[in-house]
Order: sequence, then structure tokens, then C-alpha cells
Amino acid sequence: MPEALRIGIAGLGTVGGGLVRLLQKNGAQIAARAGRPIEITHVNARDKAKDRGVDLSAYQWVDNPLELADKGGPDIVVELIGGSEGVAKELVEKSLSAGKHVVTANKALLAHHGMALAALAEETGACLNYEAAAAGGIPIIKSLREGFAANNIESLYGILNGTCNYILTQMRESGRAFEDVLREAQEKGYAEADPSFDIDGVDTAHKLCLLTALAYGVRPDIEALKITGIRKISALDISFVEELGYRVKLLGIAQRLNGKIMQTVEPCLVPRKNSLAFVGGVFNAVFTKGDFAGASMVTGRGAGAGPTASSVAADLIDLARGIHLPVFGVSSGALQKAEWVEEKDIVNCYYLHFYVHDKPGVIADLSAILKKYDISIERFIQPGQGEASVSIVMVTHETDKASMRRAIEEMKELSALTQEPVCLRIERI
Amino acid sequence: MPEALRIGIAGLGTVGGGLVRLLQKNGAQIAARAGRPIEITHVNARDKAKDRGVDLSAYQWVDNPLELADKGGPDIVVELIGGSEGVAKELVEKSLSAGKHVVTANKALLAHHGMALAALAEETGACLNYEAAAAGGIPIIKSLREGFAANNIESLYGILNGTCNYILTQMRESGRAFEDVLREAQEKGYAEADPSFDIDGVDTAHKLCLLTALAYGVRPDIEALKITGIRKISALDISFVEELGYRVKLLGIAQRLNGKIMQTVEPCLVPRKNSLAFVGGVFNAVFTKGDFAGASMVTGRGAGAGPTASSVAADLIDLARGIHLPVFGVSSGALQKAEWVEEKDIVNCYYLHFYVHDKPGVIADLSAILKKYDISIERFIQPGQGEASVSIVMVTHETDKASMRRAIEEMKELSALTQEPVCLRIERI
Repeated sequence: MPEALRIGIAGLGTVGGGLVRLLQKNGAQIAARAGRPIEITHVNARDKAKDRGVDLSAYQWVDNPLELADKGGPDIVVELIGGSEGVAKELVEKSLSAGKHVVTANKALLAHHGMALAALAEETGACLNYEAAAAGGIPIIKSLREGFAANNIESLYGILNGTCNYILTQMRESGRAFEDVLREAQEKGYAEADPSFDIDGVDTAHKLCLLTALAYGVRPDIEALKITGIRKISALDISFVEELGYRVKLLGIAQRLNGKIMQTVEPCLVPRKNSLAFVGGVFNAVFTKGDFAGASMVTGRGAGAGPTASSVAADLIDLARGIHLPVFGVSSGALQKAEWVEEKDIVNCYYLHFYVHDKPGVIADLSAILKKYDISIERFIQPGQGEASVSIVMVTHETDKASMRRAIEEMKELSALTQEPVCLRIERI
Repeated sequence: MPEALRIGIAGLGTVGGGLVRLLQKNGAQIAARAGRPIEITHVNARDKAKDRGVDLSAYQWVDNPLELADKGGPDIVVELIGGSEGVAKELVEKSLSAGKHVVTANKALLAHHGMALAALAEETGACLNYEAAAAGGIPIIKSLREGFAANNIESLYGILNGTCNYILTQMRESGRAFEDVLREAQEKGYAEADPSFDIDGVDTAHKLCLLTALAYGVRPDIEALKITGIRKISALDISFVEELGYRVKLLGIAQRLNGKIMQTVEPCLVPRKNSLAFVGGVFNAVFTKGDFAGASMVTGRGAGAGPTASSVAADLIDLARGIHLPVFGVSSGALQKAEWVEEKDIVNCYYLHFYVHDKPGVIADLSAILKKYDISIERFIQPGQGEASVSIVMVTHETDKASMRRAIEEMKELSALTQEPVCLRIERI
């Protein structure tokens, strides 16, 4: 058997620990599949003394992760430190500059610096693999870059954040409020102490950027992406939406429309009979529609030690087999600067939820503004609650995003509204 | 840009025609992703005069497909003739012997001769790619061979035949009989004039063999596989099963049990809330459970010109990129001869449906036989119909397959039975 591929792991948290366990447990099988053994030679983390429940005694401990990029270090650097800046970025840059292949799970780094890193990798002939950066254990990067490579992808819908999907699922199943369920998710370890990265949609946005780049051959561009999270979704919304035959999902969506690309992260209404609506709890899913492959959907675990380690190891096996592909599927020079679809060309139906003082004339005022922007109402529910505020729920016919945004801005000024209206895109998948 | 990869296509039926259209339409994008153009140089089919709705004038027509394997022919041979023997086999053998890479959608050929072809390919350094051979447009071969390569696959469940899934879905939705729905499927082009390959489970078995080989690193062995199709499923079964909270699906299943492998193709009861139960119509799906990746499922179109061409083209792009992998993921010498699980170690609950003359003592006779084999009954329904025959439906507790088979054989002898009992495995996925 040929020489072992020697890897160094920077970062021994959940994923790093999982990777060590995986390579120890399934090493023989991996060697058979990779055509050569994959051996951990170096490890690095902040705290050497910490017990991680795995035996690290056979590996060389490195205090400074940047040493992994040195000559005489491992063949491949596995970056599991995280974060778009700082030492993770330095390590990846130094490794690629030295012509060393890098495997990472770092979506933030790739979403912000993917283009520069792809160019750098190309310059030195190094690879930068990141299967674990989106949708955890699901091989979605490989599917887009290779499996569906012959297709023009017409649309892509992703449930890419397990924390948000868990919260939305729990809210629906238990009828509880967002804050309640978030607290429970934090206790169970499904949400971070500071949950904003997840619940404000930033994590989904990082992942979507990478999928858009792969699906459409464009430069990842996190700056161009408008992101809306799930903080404003109330228990009332969840139940109204259910009544209307939909479910709320935080989606990352990319579509090709008239040669341009539409990219958004926002909570959307998905028809209850659509497969995406059934993806519950911490599961992730990606639905793609290719011009030849047609509709396809993959679901699986989007986070956790095992699934993420599985994807990191798949990247390592690819490298051991000599599979060397461009970071975003085409050479970085061939990646287009995307032309983004304008708001006026993004057409959807919308769900609107107004919290209002129960006074005469409110509906007339709301309707007048919608009429002004040529937005017509398909369904209207006034559940009628009483107390300080009542709910008015509407489903609109198709309208463009620019009109809807302007109408909402104008409606926010109405004194009868007790809080900001909720406006959710309805997907007709 | 480097030189074009020159391909020759043998067989211009649905898939061959679809591939020509795909390469013509998406050629520029494919070239960017593959790093070089993929050009059709030679084509072959039985009837040169036939109008296939695509322009073939730029390609060299070859009367004898075996010429594609000759020196001076294309770089890569795409075999889309089909069939496990005859000219398809000759062409693949001749091409591999000459060291030419082959791409095929031919599951029958690979299920019967995969081991010999893998050894031959290895000898000459040629590749044999077959993404289109299982689950059409779904990149399941790549997912098992690469995406989940670091995992021990604990179990794999496939809905691998669109014809059967369409028939079972239609039977459930419309309440009509098997023969009725089959006839309609034939009219719509979803079933062949001679449908036995599909409805008797042979096509599913071919595909499962390949997935088992990839998932478990074993030699594909169609001979070892017991196959049961869907002919005996009646409209009554479909409705009883629904009442019990399940759906009938023709599944290809592979599982690892105590170091041995269980492989079966048979109609099974899937809990109605399981994702596999929602895969309707002509769609295919593969559910896998890996020791690290956990549960994952992919769904998509399992047949048709577009999806199949998409997968053939993905194989071509891999070859153009220089990705050369062993046929079944490990070198053919490393493929194990599988140890198959014995019937006595396959434990499931079962759904039983007896058609009986409504005479006293029938239930006592049936129960006595079940008792003899230590099979206990969990649920019992006697829907009561009258006429010539009545239905007795039972759900058993867990029992081993050997006991169940023997009990059924004995029950078949009972004079009160008006036809063979239906016995379906219940999956607790």
C-alpha cells in the first residue's frame, strides 16, 4: 500500500474530537477506500491539558497552529478552529501559500474570503475542501460540484440551520413562544449561549453563499445577500400559517431568473404537502432543480460531531485518492461576478400579519396602502382576539418585492399598529 | 483550454438522445466545470435512418458499436445499449481491455458481471462509471463511494424502481386494482409492454446489488438475492395497510447484522410518518444510516431521458477532470465475498393477509400454526366481507424469517384458504 497521508488537525472541539474518533474507529476501511492510510500526525488546540475523551498520545502536539503549515509538518491541514478572521484565516492562507491542501468546516471564512482563497489555492496548486461547511453530514457540496455538474440549476432551497429548524418545529408542535423554545434549545445544546449567528440567519447565509457559488459558477458574495432571521416569528404566526396550509421554514434560496441570480435568506411559508415542510427538528435539507436532473432533495443531520466529521473525512479521502478540484467547481478566473435580480423582478405571494388596536378604519387604512402599490388580497383572516391588540392576517396575490417593501414601510407609520407587521414570502415550490 | 475529451455513444434511445441534447445545450458550462470540452465524436445505434429529434450530423456514425473500442475511436465509450449479455457486454469488455474508460447506465450488466468487469478495468487502468445505473438523476453512487466513504453503513433502504412506486402510489390514491393501474402506467409510458422486469423486482435487485457492493465493500452478487415483486399486492392490502398506519413500498434493503450482510428486495410496510412513505409516483429515494453521518435520505427522479443523461454526463465530467476511482470504491481484490445473514437471524414484524372461506375453525387453524412456530399476534382485523371469500388480517410481533416462511408454507395447505396468503415485512426504520 502507498505511503500514508499525514494530516494535522487544528482545533479539537466537537468536530475535531469527532474526526479523531472517526479516523481511529474506521481507519482500516478508510485506507481501503482511499487507497492509502490516512494518519493523524499533528494536533493542535488551545488547551493541551483538557480531557477530550480521545487518546491523543500518538500524535505530535503543536502549540501554535501555524506550525502545521511549515515544511516537515503534515501533508494536509485540517482547520477546525472556526471564525472568518484571525488564526483560522492565517492558518488556511499560510497552508495554501505553502502548497498544502486544506480541509475545513469553516463556512464564515469561505463566505467572506472564498474568492481570495480560491485564487490563492489555484496559484500554488493546493486544494481547499469544505464538504462539512454546509449541511453537515449531507454531501451537498459534492453533489452540486460533481453529481449535478452537467445541469443548469434552476433553483435551490436549503434548510441549512438546525437550530432554527429545531426552534420552528418545536414552536409548531408545542404552541410555545419563540423565547421559550430558544431557552430550551440552549439547555439541550442545540443553540449557542449567544444564538444570534443562528437565529438571525447569518449561519444560513454563509452556507447559502457557498451553494450559490457552486450551483451558478459565481463568486461567493455575502455582502450582496439580504438576511432575515426568525426572531419575529410568533406562536400566533405559526398557528395562522398552519391554518392556511403552510409551514414556516428559514430558507436559503437561490434561483436563476432571466439570466440573473436571486439569493435570499428569510423565513418563508412552504406548502404543508411539500417535502421541505416535513424536514423537522435539527435536520437539514437541500432541494435542487436542475434542467436535466429535475427535482431532487437530500436530507440529513446538519451538525454535530459525527456528521461533520464524516464530511471532513470524505474530503480527506478525496485528497488521498488524488481528486483535486477547483474550490468552487470551476477555475477562479471563470467564476462570474453575479448579476443579482432586482427587487422589482422578484415576484411572490406574501403572508402579512398586523397587530393593531381594534379601532374602526384600520382595515381601510391597510387596504388603501396595499391598493396604492397594486397589491391585491387573496385571503383575509381576522381571528379576533381582543385585549390590547388584535391580529389581522392577509395572504396577497403575487406582487414584486419592491412594492411589498414600500407598502410595509408605509404601513409601519400607521398609528393603529401596535408592533411591526410580519411579512413572509410564500414559496410555490 | 486542454484538448477535448472525445466520446462515442452506443445506443441512441431515450437516454442516448437525452445525453446528446444535454451535451449540446450545456456544453459551455460543462467545459468550464470539467476543465476541458466534452465532445461527441462517434455515435452508434441500430437504425441510422430513425429521426431522434437531435442533430447528429456532426458526429461520425458507426454501424458496429464494437468499433468504438478500436484505436483511433473515441477516448471514452458510453454504453447505452442495455442488457446483461450480448453486444453491450462485448462492447464494455472490449473497451476496458483496450484501456478505454467506459460510462454506462447498464445495471443488469454490472449486477451480473460487475466483479469480472471491475477486475478487467483494474488490469488495464480503465475506469467503469455507472452513476446512471441506480436511481437515475440522484447521485447516489457518488454519495456512497465518496460522500459517505468514511462511514460504516448500518442500513440502506431504496425505492429504486419508479414503475413500481408509481403503481403502488396510484393504487393507494385511487383504490384501483393492480392490473388496472399497471395498464394505465403502460399507456403513460411509465411501464414497459413486458413489465415483469420492473414489477417482479428484478430491476430493483440489479440496482440494490450495486449499492450493497459500494456500501459494504462486498462483491455484487445477484444470485444470492431473494427477490419478491409487487404482483400479489391487492387493492385490499393497500387499504388495510393504510388503516394500520403504514404504506406499501417495494424496497431494496441492505443491512449489516453481526458482521454479516442482509440483502433483500420485497414489498414492505413503511410507517406512514417515515419520510420513505412520502416518496410517491415515479420518484426514487435512498435512505442510508452511517455510523458517523447518521440518517440521510435523497430523493429524485429515478428514470427518464433528462435525469439519466444528467448522471451519465456527471460520470463524463469526472473522467474529464481526471477522477479515476475503482469500480466499487475499493480495489477489486479488496472486495470481500459477503457473508449473508441467515433467515433465522432476520427478525421483523409481519403483516399477514389471508383470503379464506368463511367457515368455523379457520382462525383456530391459522393461530395454531402461528403458535407452533412461536409467532405471536399483535393486532388482528377481520374486516368481514362475505361473498366467496373473506379477509383476515394480522400483524405479528417480531419473529424470524425462517419461522415465518415455514408457518406460511404450512398455512398454504389449509383447505379454507381461497388463495395464497400475503406476507409483508414491516420496517421499523
